[in-house]
Amino acid sequence: MYLENFNSIQPPFHNNQSEGLKWLAAAYKVAQKDQNYSEEDYAKLLQRVACSESQIATRRFFLPDSQHTEWEKHEIYPIKDSPRGATMLQRHEFYHKTVREIFDNLYETRKFPDDIIHVSCTGYISPSAAQRVAVKAPKTVTVTHSYHMGCYGAFPALRMASGFLSSHDVLGKKKSVDLVHTELCSLHLNPQDPTLEQMVIQSLFADGVIAYSMTAEKPKKGFKLISLHEELVPDTTEAMEWMVADWGMKMTLSKDVPMMVGKKIKDFTYRWLSGRDIDMNYIRKHAIFAVHPGGPKIIDQVVAQLELNEDQVKGSRSILKERGNMSSATLPHLWEKLLNDDSIPSGTPIISYAFGPGLTICGGLMEKV
Amino acid sequence: MYLENFNSIQPPFHNNQSEGLKWLAAAYKVAQKDQNYSEEDYAKLLQRVACSESQIATRRFFLPDSQHTEWEKHEIYPIKDSPRGATMLQRHEFYHKTVREIFDNLYETRKFPDDIIHVSCTGYISPSAAQRVAVKAPKTVTVTHSYHMGCYGAFPALRMASGFLSSHDVLGKKKSVDLVHTELCSLHLNPQDPTLEQMVIQSLFADGVIAYSMTAEKPKKGFKLISLHEELVPDTTEAMEWMVADWGMKMTLSKDVPMMVGKKIKDFTYRWLSGRDIDMNYIRKHAIFAVHPGGPKIIDQVVAQLELNEDQVKGSRSILKERGNMSSATLPHLWEKLLNDDSIPSGTPIISYAFGPGLTICGGLMEKV
Repeated sequence: MYLENFNSIQPPFHNNQSEGLKWLAAAYKVAQKDQNYSEEDYAKLLQRVACSESQIATRRFFLPDSQHTEWEKHEIYPIKDSPRGATMLQRHEFYHKTVREIFDNLYETRKFPDDIIHVSCTGYISPSAAQRVAVKAPKTVTVTHSYHMGCYGAFPALRMASGFLSSHDVLGKKKSVDLVHTELCSLHLNPQDPTLEQMVIQSLFADGVIAYSMTAEKPKKGFKLISLHEELVPDTTEAMEWMVADWGMKMTLSKDVPMMVGKKIKDFTYRWLSGRDIDMNYIRKHAIFAVHPGGPKIIDQVVAQLELNEDQVKGSRSILKERGNMSSATLPHLWEKLLNDDSIPSGTPIISYAFGPGLTICGGLMEKV
Repeated sequence: MYLENFNSIQPPFHNNQSEGLKWLAAAYKVAQKDQNYSEEDYAKLLQRVACSESQIATRRFFLPDSQHTEWEKHEIYPIKDSPRGATMLQRHEFYHKTVREIFDNLYETRKFPDDIIHVSCTGYISPSAAQRVAVKAPKTVTVTHSYHMGCYGAFPALRMASGFLSSHDVLGKKKSVDLVHTELCSLHLNPQDPTLEQMVIQSLFADGVIAYSMTAEKPKKGFKLISLHEELVPDTTEAMEWMVADWGMKMTLSKDVPMMVGKKIKDFTYRWLSGRDIDMNYIRKHAIFAVHPGGPKIIDQVVAQLELNEDQVKGSRSILKERGNMSSATLPHLWEKLLNDDSIPSGTPIISYAFGPGLTICGGLMEKV
C-alpha cells in the first residue's frame, strides 16, 4: 500500500503564540468574572504553563473569533452572555458549515476515490460533509466515519484504508481510498475553566484539515506503507480523556503523559519491529522519526529513550512550531512536509508515532518513494 | 470471511408497547406544561403515529427510568426540573457506566480476539469501555471505534473487520475480530419535543447490545460473508439526520424515507449483485431477506419492490416485534436469530439490508454454514 496525493488546506486565520495567549487571558478574565484574578494574572499563568513561541510560533484557525476580543460579535465565544461559550449544537453547526465548504472545494479538483474515510474527533453530524460530497460523484463512493479516537486518529484510518484495498473477495477490487481529516479543535474551548490543565490544552491545539490517498499501485511520489502497530498502555486509562460534555468536547490530560509514553516507547518499538523481523538498530540509526508532536516533551522523550539525534525529529519540532497540535491531522501534515523535503532521499525509512486516550500508542513504518 | 459466536445481552428492563406509549404521553404532559393538551391528547396522538403492538410488542432498556413515572427519581428524565431531561454529560456518564459493565462481563467468558471494533451511535467516550477491557487482555488487542453512522452501522464495521483480516502485509496475520455494538437509544429522548416526527422516533427505538466475531477460518456454525455493498441515494440528504445537539443526540426523520428507499432498492440490488455475477432472480426466490426493520413500512417496501413472499422477511418482522429498532445492533440480533433457527438450512443465502443517514443503503450477502 502507498500514500500519495497530500493536500493540506490552510485555515484562513492565524495567531502567533503570544497573540493566542493574550486572547485566552482576556477570555478567562471575562468568563470568570473573578475579581481576585486580573487579565495579567491569567497571562502570567499561561506564560508559565503554555508552550513558548520557540516551541509553537503560530496556530491556525477556521474560527474568526480567534482574531479579536469583541466578545459580543463572537459566534462561538460570546462569553459576556455565555461564559463557557456557545452551545454544543451551535459549535456543531459551525463545524458542519465549515467542513461542508472544505469538502465541496476539495472535490472540485480532486479525483473521486472508491472510498472516503472521514477522520475527526471534533464534529459528528450524519450525513457528514463527506457523504454530502460523495453522493455527487459520478461513481459509487463509499464513506466511512472514523470518529472519536483523538490525536492518533490517522492510524485506525490507515488500517481501515489498507483493509478496504485488501479485502477483494468481500468488497470487490478497489483502487484508491481518500483519507480526509477535519479537526476544528478551536471549537471546543471552555473559557470558564481556567485550570492549569486546561490552560495547557487550550494553548496547544489548533485547527488542521488535510486529505491524502492510499493506493495499491506505486505512485511517482509518496510513501510505501510497510507496517502498522497499536497498543494500549496498562494502568494509564485515567491519564487522558476525550468526551462529549455539555458545552462541547472536553479533554483531560495528565502532565505525566509524556513520561508514561516515554517509559514504554522503546519496548513498544522493539516488540513491534522484531515481530516483523525488522532490525531496530538499523531503524534507530537511519530512519526519520515522525513523532506526533502532542507537545515538545513527548518529542524529547522519544529522542531520549530511543537515543536519536535531533535531526531525526526536526520535522516533528517544526510542524509543532508552525501549526501547533492539530489532533489527528498533525501527522498527515508532517508526512506531507517530509514528502516535499528533497533533502530526504527516496528509500528513507520513516517511523511514525501517535498517542492518545487509552493511553494508546500507535506506530507506523513507511518508506519514502 | 465468516461470522460466528453471536452473544446478545438482554437489557434488564422491558415495556410492552402500550406501557411505553403511556410513559411517553405522561412525559410529554409534564415536560410541556401545556394546558391545551392533556396526557390523553398525547396518548391519542401517539396511538395514531406510533407502531401498534402487533408491530412492536416490547422494547427493552438499560435505563430504569423507563419503568416508572416518579420523575423526581429519574436519573436521565427528571423532567419536572429539567423538561428536556438530563444534560449531555449526564447521559454520557450513564452510557459509560453501563457499557463498561457490559464489556467487563462480556470478556469474563469471551475469548479475546486480535481486534475489537466498537460500534455505537449513542455514546462517545475515549478511552472507551472497549479500550478499558482490551488493555486487560493477555495479548495485544487493537480497538477501533466505529461511531456515528446510525442504523446501518454494522456494515462499515463488517468492512473494517474484513479488511483487518485481509491486510496481512501491513497489519500482520490476524485470526479474529470481535464486533461489539452498544446502542443505548433510550438515553437520547427529549420529552420537551412532542412533534409527530419525534413521537414516531421516540416510540420506535430501544436499547440493544450484541457481540459477534469475524474469522478467516470456517466455523462449525455461522455465516460465510460473501459480499458487501453500500450506496448513497441522490437527493435524499435532508431526509434523515443524526447529530450531536445540546441535550443529547437528535434524530430527524422524514416520513418519506421508506418510500425513498423502496424506490431504489431494486436497482441497488441489481447493480450490486450483477457486478458480482450473482443471479438476482435466484436470490429473490431462494434467499432469506434480513431487512433492518427501521419500521414496518420499510419491510413492506422491500417485499413489494422485490416481489418477495412474507416468509422471506419473517425474521425482520419478528425482531421488530420483540425488540423495536435497536439502531446498529438490530441486524446482528436478527442474524443471531437466523443462525439459531434450525428451519433455515445450511447453504441458505441471506441478503441483509440496512438504511441510515445519507440516505445510505447497505447490502450484504452471506450464506448460512
